[in-house]
Amino acid sequence: MRLHDNLSSGNGYKVRLLLAHLDLPFERIEYDIDRDETRTARFLETLNPNGRIPVLETSTGNFLPESNAILFYLADGTRFLPEDRLERARVLQWMFFEQYSHEPNIATPRYWSVHGIEMIEERQLALVGKREQGYAALGVMERHLDGREFFVGDGYSIADTALYAYTHVSHEGGFDLAPFPAVRAWLDRCSSQPNHISINAG
Amino acid sequence: MRLHDNLSSGNGYKVRLLLAHLDLPFERIEYDIDRDETRTARFLETLNPNGRIPVLETSTGNFLPESNAILFYLADGTRFLPEDRLERARVLQWMFFEQYSHEPNIATPRYWSVHGIEMIEERQLALVGKREQGYAALGVMERHLDGREFFVGDGYSIADTALYAYTHVSHEGGFDLAPFPAVRAWLDRCSSQPNHISINAG
Repeated sequence: MRLHDNLSSGNGYKVRLLLAHLDLPFERIEYDIDRDETRTARFLETLNPNGRIPVLETSTGNFLPESNAILFYLADGTRFLPEDRLERARVLQWMFFEQYSHEPNIATPRYWSVHGIEMIEERQLALVGKREQGYAALGVMERHLDGREFFVGDGYSIADTALYAYTHVSHEGGFDLAPFPAVRAWLDRCSSQPNHISINAG
Repeated sequence: MRLHDNLSSGNGYKVRLLLAHLDLPFERIEYDIDRDETRTARFLETLNPNGRIPVLETSTGNFLPESNAILFYLADGTRFLPEDRLERARVLQWMFFEQYSHEPNIATPRYWSVHGIEMIEERQLALVGKREQGYAALGVMERHLDGREFFVGDGYSIADTALYAYTHVSHEGGFDLAPFPAVRAWLDRCSSQPNHISINAG
């Protein structure tokens, strides 16, 4: 398998982290997203018409974009994705929460900071709303994790992988996790899983 | 089953539409989202900690939020969700595309318009970006659908249900589908499916 990736990306990290948990070998191909290397004609035609990493190239030569779809594909049939129909749907519930309510508010300010994006007026105004909605998303996580070890069922699943990726670096986008003790305890449980790797481990 | 819902919501419509396709009976419970009826303590504690409709209340009394997770739950084991592992992941690929790249740009301007939200400066500036990114998402759909009948495999799936919901009312948010003939032909194929219902059919 090959992972078309960017090392700074939390979405890419989700896949790298699960591949490490699963102890699956893969080749990582780095794209410079600041130089639009994921917007070339070849990338759009062959890898992902939406021009984004990560894209998983399967051993049979299929290209699969969208980090959470890749997680589901890789986890299918493993202990990282429950078999029960309702529990599977709950894993997806939290992964859609991650992409809609969490990532745009918590990952995007980090992206602007890490990639040195100019804070024009539109972004400055957007940041106010993202800060408010990002803290609201962290509040939803805090209430859910109060009294729970992991997001779904009794064990670590790809719902945790998906939400761990950008939560554990949220301070790089200006978020303070001090008011969220259940989230911080859950982050520690996630990073204690076997074969855990850090976000910058290529 | 009960569907906790708002009739103007495209996310709610996705579920209503699939329930109609599946010919499954359900009770619909309407919430006035303009009056924050989904942000009450009871709603947050029992139905969805994220304070949003739709929420499916299953026949066994479980509450499942997130429209696309509900679609996956209801379609599991039916012809609307392929059995093949890669095709299932592709359905999810397009559903995550819908929630990340499509819905925030194409549904939100419609929401502002339909619900009479005041266009303060932050929203006016955001609308410029949403218009650009919404048209980019429609372009991704147009290129993918060129030569294809449906988003995944040979038949209509919940990937189509998810993307149909807000695309077919995108003009209510100011989008013009004239430059997207493959998208328009696909919309016609979707609305020709057996048991199709309109967005305002409660």
